[in-house]
Formats: sequence, C-alpha cells, structure tokens
Amino acid sequence: MRILVAQINPTVGDLAGNAEKIVAAIKRGKSEDADLVLFPEMALSGYPPDDLLLMPSFITDVEQALRTITPHTFGITAVVGLPRHNPGIKEKAIFNSAAVIRDGGIVKFHDKILLPTYDVFDERRFFEPGSQVTTFTHNGQKIGITICEDIWQHSDTLRFTSYYRDPVQELAEHQPDLVLNLSSSPYSFEKPYRRLKICGKAAETLRCPLVLCNQVGGDDSLIFDGYSFYVDVTGELLAHAKGFEEDWMVVDTEQHTQPVPFHDDSIGDLYRALVLGLKDYMHKQGFRQACLGLSGGIDSAVTACLAVEALGAENVLGVSMPSRYSSEHSQTDAAALAKNLGIRYITIPIESAFTALNDLLQPHFENKPPNVTEENLQSRIRGMILMSLSNKLGHIVLSTGNKSESAMGYTTLYGDMAGGLAVISDVTKMQIYALARYINRNEEIIPENTIAKPPSAELRPNQLDSDTLPEYSILDAVLQDYVELHLDAEHIAKRQKIDIKLVKELIRKIHCNEFKRRQAPPTLRVSEKSLTRGRSFPIVQKWVK
Amino acid sequence: MRILVAQINPTVGDLAGNAEKIVAAIKRGKSEDADLVLFPEMALSGYPPDDLLLMPSFITDVEQALRTITPHTFGITAVVGLPRHNPGIKEKAIFNSAAVIRDGGIVKFHDKILLPTYDVFDERRFFEPGSQVTTFTHNGQKIGITICEDIWQHSDTLRFTSYYRDPVQELAEHQPDLVLNLSSSPYSFEKPYRRLKICGKAAETLRCPLVLCNQVGGDDSLIFDGYSFYVDVTGELLAHAKGFEEDWMVVDTEQHTQPVPFHDDSIGDLYRALVLGLKDYMHKQGFRQACLGLSGGIDSAVTACLAVEALGAENVLGVSMPSRYSSEHSQTDAAALAKNLGIRYITIPIESAFTALNDLLQPHFENKPPNVTEENLQSRIRGMILMSLSNKLGHIVLSTGNKSESAMGYTTLYGDMAGGLAVISDVTKMQIYALARYINRNEEIIPENTIAKPPSAELRPNQLDSDTLPEYSILDAVLQDYVELHLDAEHIAKRQKIDIKLVKELIRKIHCNEFKRRQAPPTLRVSEKSLTRGRSFPIVQKWVK
Repeated sequence: MRILVAQINPTVGDLAGNAEKIVAAIKRGKSEDADLVLFPEMALSGYPPDDLLLMPSFITDVEQALRTITPHTFGITAVVGLPRHNPGIKEKAIFNSAAVIRDGGIVKFHDKILLPTYDVFDERRFFEPGSQVTTFTHNGQKIGITICEDIWQHSDTLRFTSYYRDPVQELAEHQPDLVLNLSSSPYSFEKPYRRLKICGKAAETLRCPLVLCNQVGGDDSLIFDGYSFYVDVTGELLAHAKGFEEDWMVVDTEQHTQPVPFHDDSIGDLYRALVLGLKDYMHKQGFRQACLGLSGGIDSAVTACLAVEALGAENVLGVSMPSRYSSEHSQTDAAALAKNLGIRYITIPIESAFTALNDLLQPHFENKPPNVTEENLQSRIRGMILMSLSNKLGHIVLSTGNKSESAMGYTTLYGDMAGGLAVISDVTKMQIYALARYINRNEEIIPENTIAKPPSAELRPNQLDSDTLPEYSILDAVLQDYVELHLDAEHIAKRQKIDIKLVKELIRKIHCNEFKRRQAPPTLRVSEKSLTRGRSFPIVQKWVK
Repeated sequence: MRILVAQINPTVGDLAGNAEKIVAAIKRGKSEDADLVLFPEMALSGYPPDDLLLMPSFITDVEQALRTITPHTFGITAVVGLPRHNPGIKEKAIFNSAAVIRDGGIVKFHDKILLPTYDVFDERRFFEPGSQVTTFTHNGQKIGITICEDIWQHSDTLRFTSYYRDPVQELAEHQPDLVLNLSSSPYSFEKPYRRLKICGKAAETLRCPLVLCNQVGGDDSLIFDGYSFYVDVTGELLAHAKGFEEDWMVVDTEQHTQPVPFHDDSIGDLYRALVLGLKDYMHKQGFRQACLGLSGGIDSAVTACLAVEALGAENVLGVSMPSRYSSEHSQTDAAALAKNLGIRYITIPIESAFTALNDLLQPHFENKPPNVTEENLQSRIRGMILMSLSNKLGHIVLSTGNKSESAMGYTTLYGDMAGGLAVISDVTKMQIYALARYINRNEEIIPENTIAKPPSAELRPNQLDSDTLPEYSILDAVLQDYVELHLDAEHIAKRQKIDIKLVKELIRKIHCNEFKRRQAPPTLRVSEKSLTRGRSFPIVQKWVK
C-alpha cells in the first residue's frame, strides 16, 4: 500500500485555500501512484479554529468546502481532517472528524474519541467525543483511523489528564493491518521526540505499522512542527517528513525499509519553531514588515535575528531609542547587530519626550521621589514610538521580552511589552543564550559583547537585572518546576538546593504579575507550559505557595 | 426543617478567610436554630480558581481548611462547596464537590455531575464528572444535593451545550423531600430571572421544594449576583436573598409561606453588578483608589459614577487631558461631573508632550500625511499619563471604553484601552445611555449635555463617531445577533431589516479587531457573551461571514 503523507500548512478559516492545498496533494498522490493520501487533523478548517467552531455557518461552509474535494478522489482514497455536524447531539453540536473519501464519495467518518481539555486544548468546549473506533478496508487491508490524542492515552505519559478509554487498545482488538493518525500536535521544546515515542508505543500494541501526518505551520500562538512519522510494528522509525515546513513523503508498507535515526537538535528546532511561528503570524495576516527596539541587549538581538530569518532583512526595521541612562555600548552593540544583519536602523533619542512628559506629571506627583514610575515612563515612550512607526508605516511591532522576565513582571505594561507579537516570551533567559550561540555558530552575527555583558534594563543609573533577580539559571529552574511541573515551594527548594525563602519570593512574583501578562501580546508558545496561552490563573486571588 | 442560606462572598484562594466566613455562618445558623446551613458552590476555595486547581498543594490546602470547619458542626449540618481529590482518577484528579458535614465529621460528598464547558466555563479542564446523584437523610427527611449546572440541563434552555444525563430526572426517582443547590452562577444581563425559572422547573419535576444558594461577589471578570432562591414544589418563589451583597435568609420548609414577587429592575441590576464587580476587583486586591480620564463624554461619566459608588468619592481621581482638538464643552462637562460627584479633578493638557513626540517621529514618517497614527498618539499620551499617576500614587487606572466601540476596534491599544480594569467594556452604548438615565433618576449627576451631545473621540477636528460607525442602536443590534446568538450576516440583515453590506462590514470589523481585544484589561462581564472573557476567536484566520 502506498500512502502519500501530505504534511500541509493550512490557515485557520481559509477554507478555499486549504481545500486547494488538499486537492493539489491528492493530485500529487495520483502522480506518485499512491493508494491513499493522508492529511493532518482539521486540515480543511485549520487547527485550532477556536470559537469559529461555534458559528453554525462556519461548519456549513466547511462541509461545502469538502464537497469541492470529493470529485478529485476517483481512483484514490483521501483521509481528510475536518469538523463536522453531529447528527445526533447528546453533548455538543459537532465532531472532530476524519473523512475517508474515495471515488467521489464519503466512505466513512471517524470521530475523535479522546478530546484533550488541558493546557492549550479545550476540545470539550466544542466537540462531542466519538463513540467508537473506526476501521475501513482498502484492497483487502484493514486500516484503522485515529486522530491525534486518540493514541496518547495508551502511552500513559499524559501529565494533565487521563481518559476512561484507550482507543489504541480497542483498535488492537480489530487486528488492523495499518493504523493512520491525523494530528495537529503543537510543538513544544523536545516534543517531537515524545511524539515519536508515543507512535512507537501505539504501533507495538496495535501490532501493525503506524503512519502519522502532523500539521505544520503557525496559528496565533501555536506552532505545529510537522515531523510526520512512519513507524513499523516494533515502533522503529522508518521515515519522517521535515520539521517546520510543508513536506510530503511516500510510505510503501509493502516495501522493506531500513530504520532511520531521528536527529538530535533541540535548540535548532526551537530556533526553527520561532522563525516559523513569527513568519506565519505575519504572513497569514498579510503583513510583510516588522519593527522592533534594539537595546544592544541579547533579547532584542535574538528577536531581530529571528525576524530577519522569517521575513528577510529588507523587511525588518531596528530602532535604537537611547535615554540618559543608556550606556555607550547599548548603541554601538545595537548598531553592530543591525549592520551584521543588514537591516534598516534608525535612532530616536527619547530625552525630549521624557522631559516633556515628566514636566507635565511632576506637579501631580505630590513630591514623591523618583521610583518605578519614571522607569516605566521611558519604557512606555519607547513603546509609543514603535507603535507610531507601526501605525504610519504598516509594520507589526515585535516585543522582545523573554519568559524569565515575564514571569517576574520585570517588564513594563504598554512599554517593552507593547507589540503585535511577543516573539520570545515563552523562551527562558538560559534558552536565549543557547539561541544566541546557535545563531552565531558559523559567524558572529550577534556581537560578542551583547552576549557577554551582564543583563540590564538601563532604566536608571548602573541598573543590573541581578540587582533584583537571582541568577537566571536559578530563576529558570524554579520557573520550570513551578510553572511546568506544578511543584510547591518546599519541593522546589529541596530539588534545586536553594533557600525556600527565595523560592517563595519568586513564586509570589509570578502570581503578582499575572495582571501584566493578561495584557501581553500573543506569545509564540514553545514550552510545555507558556505563561499566557494555555495557563490561566486569576488576577484577584490570595493563594500563593 | 430550618435552613440558613449563607450567601457569602468568598475570595478565590483566601482559604483562611473563606473558612472564617463559613464558620461564622454556621454559628449564625446555630443561633437561628437552623438544622442546616447551605453554602455556595466552591465556597471554600472561591469560584472560579482556574489553574490554581491544577496545583496539588492547593487542593491539599483546601482539604486542610475543611478540617478547620468540621469541629464547628456539632448539632448542625453544613453543606459546603469545595474542590476535592478524586480518589479513583479516570479522567481528572479532582471533583467539584459539596461536603455534607455534621457533628464534626463528613457525612457524604456530592460530586458535580454536569460540568459546564462553554462560554466562561471550562470545568472539564479540571474536574471529573460525578458518577451519581446524591441524597442524605436528615431528621427522617430525604434531601437531594445538586451543584449549579446539575439542575440546568433539565430546563432545556442551555444554548451552547447539552448533556448525556439529567440529574434532576435521576434525583426525582429518589423522591426527595427537599433538594439543595449550591451555585456559583455568574451574573449576566437578566440572568437572575432565567435562574429563577430553572429552579422552578426543577422543583416541579422533583415534586419538592428547592433551595438554591448562590455565591455573591466579583472575581476577576465574573460577577456573582447572589439572589439565592427558595421555591416551592410548584416552582413559585417563596423567598429570595438580596442581590449583589452578602446576605443570609432562613427558610423553614414546614412553615406555610406566601409566594413573593421578584423585582423587575434589569438596569438597576446591571448598575449594581458593575459596582460590585469594580469594588471587589479593587478591594480583594488591596487597592482603594482609582483614577480615570474624564473626556466630558458619557462613557467616562458613567464609569466615574460607578467608581464613586464602589469606592467612595474620596478615592476617585478624575483627569482631564485636553488636546488641540478638545472642544470647550469636553472640559466644562468633565468639570461639572467631577463637581457633582465630589471627586478630585485635575487637568493635564497634552499639547507639549504631543509636540515633543511628534517632532521625534516626523523625520521617520517618510512624508506620509497625518492619519490614525496621530490620533492614536494623543490617546496613548493620555494612557501613559494615567499609568504614571497610577504608578506614582498607587491608583488603579479604570479604562472607559464600551462594548460597541471595543467590538469595532474604535479604541486605541495602550491609549484609551490602558488600565487595570475595563469597567464597562461589556456594556453596549445603548445600555450606557440607560445607565446614565438610571444614575440621573433622582438628580442630575451626569451633565445633561454629556448625555445629549453626539458621541465623539475628539482626536481630529470635528470628528464624530457617526463619521465611521452606524447609529449605535443598529450597531448594538448586530452585535447582539452576531456575538451572542451566532447568527450569520444574511440572517441578521433580514431580522434587523438592514443592508447586508453594512452587516458584513460590521462583522468584518469585529474579527479584524480581535488583536486589540486580546490585549485589553480584564472586563467586567455582564452580558451573555462578552467580547473577551468566554469568547475566543483566533487573530490569524480568514473566515469572515
């Protein structure tokens, strides 16, 4: 059996465009002499469409779009993911389905059984769970269909949930010859390795090969990495599609194939994920150009490099906005970076605006001494300048804060937080350093001084991040334990061998700054648990532990 | 049987404080000679705790707090809502439960069966559904327990969901003498009437009286109205607690009671909801003072009145920030309002800051003509001034945009949208007028000119809202049909008898401005469907219909 795995990059809601991609892949399947073309979960609608799914006319339009695909399936089978009306509503009006299409008609639907409702997933909000596992016959072979989460319960590695049922076990009883999985499984750091393991585990139990087709592309905060897999009955990897780009591969289950290794490049994957997420966020909205503040620091440097890779140097504008507290090197480092990247670079000193605003405000400050207010003011003037350039020139502003400072609230609302996309706000400071080294792996793009100097916001004389924050290696470890693993302070202090008072203070800061993050631009989600997308803590609450 | 209905206002995560309120109510129950004290859903943790529920140590702490309550139940029964560990996990680690406590021990738990997962609710994210209906016996009487949504499926009025089961029907088979309902049912416009009907319907089927205790208070965006009910077997209202404040009432099921009417005051309820939401958002976080921009327009006027009612005039600062485009009346109207309210009032003209920033920016504007950039700049300078006052003086900034303009994106990100709380961003412009009349019902607090003049943002010469928007009565009707009822353009045009092109243009604007709303401050949710809390549309998507 020859299967074309069509790892496409659909756009949410672009039904005509997605249908076109699907038809093109079916045609390619024919020219490749494939028996079957496999698509990702919800390929036709894009995933996740969120509350579009609640609009009855959206579902009707998806079904209409499906009718434009079926005529292309004469002589070939296509398995296409889409949301569909639930004809016998018990709980919700729609299913998350896979349509098996052949010879111009729909042979069968499989409705997703396990509906993830944790972290970034809220499928119980929209879908009714499918009631049974599904197989169909093709040239005498029995083929099972699963959708994404359907195969995850079996691995027993889910951390935030569990299910009553295990479709892999149920399907195994049907003794399939092959199982397909339609996925829209978002990237997080090192997730592709985990997904491969899950596939292997399922194949072993099913006692047959498994072919998984994963969506690729960015949709708002989520990034889908692709890396579609073909594993044999022992769970060995026989083939995989590329990561972070559209790709297709032909799997022939009757041909003997040697196992292939899966690459080991976590930081490279993180880099490619961010580039793809940034590119698709911009291009899928029709934006070509971006601007960002260049402070001479490592965060804005890494963000600029990602932007250049995603959009091209000609579409990136770097803006230096020095104040009275900016060091000499903040401007020389920023300028050197801009030169290395070949981007446009302008300088707008903020002193006159700061003075004008300060003069307006001082009479109303009740003679209180300078504090964070004046620091925020500088940051907000910069945010306002970038937003004005954006409004006038049609750029999207990229904000440059990282996850570690976002967790601590070491950011200014409407200041450095301003922008259309928070490119690295789910990347910890230690990962930022790793990315900088990755970017410089062949030549110095980010000036060495930017990487080497101690981090500073430069909002008051001689300010350093380390004045108020612990070392980033410690901070990041606490973040991981608290935010991703949900451990409590005592446990974290023990595990990381640090003072429990420090741990508690860091946790307190995470909670206290929820109000800022609530107003943050969308982040590119690249960790197991971002601080914004898929995490939802109350602002008004008193439990901190 | 005498029941004390303890309509308390818990704070999310304030386990000690909530336990104290619960113990105080039990003591009051004893002094009132009650057999039973009934509390709201999740009274001990506060509702909704969101992802606090995912922290195992939070659940442990809740159970610890429960142990501080049990010793107070000698001689009395308390039915207390709380999250609890699920001892036999199939899906999720916790239940949403009601503990029946008596004589120092836990008699029984009821675990909520129907878990709302739509609109603002995401209970399947956290909880495993309870498996069975629960009754317990008290002085020979069989008492059924239900938690909030458990009684809603029966009414067949749920719009976004449905359930496999109907606990009311299941409970009816047990022939209870009385059924209790613990609720944390959030307010939306005219929701109390709906909730009363649902109670009546359930009581009729159960063939017994029903006592519902609803949480009161604001938690982030959600406002709980209280209005606990006691209905008889025919569904008639026999008693209700107050709306929008802590209250308690004693229900004696053996005493003959005459039906009472339920008041008819939708706009008064809306007003009280906003006041409570604002007060609790501030006070539960420890803030006493607020500041806001006073433009002389109706939105900021209504917001100021709500703030004064919630916080006291001495805690509200009104700031007039005139620009070159501000009309004479914008300042006289704002000053008159401030005088009527007795609040502090300052004027900070923004001209010098506007000039300074404009001078910095113009050289980089590539000779493009003035456009929305300069309008946004004025708005952002005002946002920055308010945030600086907030930072220096410890205020929370209240933003003053309404739902109609938020839907249209007729707002400036980091400008008039800036603030800690968007007080009226779920209130349509037509409702704003109704609130203004309500506020002025006894005397002129909001200057008549503020109400009568045509709305304008005053960001360019002679600007009026009606330059770019249709009449608000039309806009609001489309909003309701599209956002609340999920109708499509064709249906709306027909229903409202307006041009379909206009409807489509308005719908397009709703979608296009999703990116702004994503960064809006928390709203006070007072409609069936707010634009932010409980509504989740992708930013990057192409379907508009």
